[in-house]
Amino acid sequence: MKAAEDTRSRIEAANRDWMSAFKRADASGLARCYTSHGQLLPANSDFVKGADAIRVFWQGALDMGLKEAVLETLEVEAYGDTAIEMGQYRLLIGGGTVADSGKYIVVWKNEGGSWKLHRDIWTTSQPPKGS
Amino acid sequence: MKAAEDTRSRIEAANRDWMSAFKRADASGLARCYTSHGQLLPANSDFVKGADAIRVFWQGALDMGLKEAVLETLEVEAYGDTAIEMGQYRLLIGGGTVADSGKYIVVWKNEGGSWKLHRDIWTTSQPPKGS
Repeated sequence: MKAAEDTRSRIEAANRDWMSAFKRADASGLARCYTSHGQLLPANSDFVKGADAIRVFWQGALDMGLKEAVLETLEVEAYGDTAIEMGQYRLLIGGGTVADSGKYIVVWKNEGGSWKLHRDIWTTSQPPKGS
Repeated sequence: MKAAEDTRSRIEAANRDWMSAFKRADASGLARCYTSHGQLLPANSDFVKGADAIRVFWQGALDMGLKEAVLETLEVEAYGDTAIEMGQYRLLIGGGTVADSGKYIVVWKNEGGSWKLHRDIWTTSQPPKGS
């Protein structure tokens, strides 16, 4: 499907914007990648709802010393102004060391002509800490 | 939307089947709730792909002493034979004690007339162990 291919390309481009914001430690820029009613579903946390809370969450991750997040899209299903992406991530600290790696599902919405993250959930693929 | 309401009702019914299988410690029954290409995205694990691996995963959870899983649907978006559910869960051990609670996103597919879990990812809302 041509439309689905286009949506995948546009989501991969939106992910590059997200990764750029992360790399320049721009939590406000990250928050702008989400819809107006965006939510994160992080481990060890309740739902994180809305731009302000999302900005604070990512600022916390950046403050922990994360330098780069690498997202790799594995599949995209597009349904009009909604899309479901499944992918893999790596989080890097200084020197390119991988601090965490895992997988994610993002529900995207085309909001005002731009694809934005609407629901964002990820899980580490690393063993439990201390194991 | 009537169709969306119907899909939500059918997904809530499918969740009741999933919960019943969990409560009777029936890992094969749980695996049958997933599509033929179903995947779990659990924390501290790679992707869990296909019925056999899904059965083994849930058998492991049951063997850890989990007695009941309570799923509460918060929102469902339906797109034909695909639906996206967001919800909350509680995992109970003996005596109704909550061992874990958190949130999830499930991508559902209507496969051969039955709604089945296709992608299943969840995160604990509890603090990290040892914190």
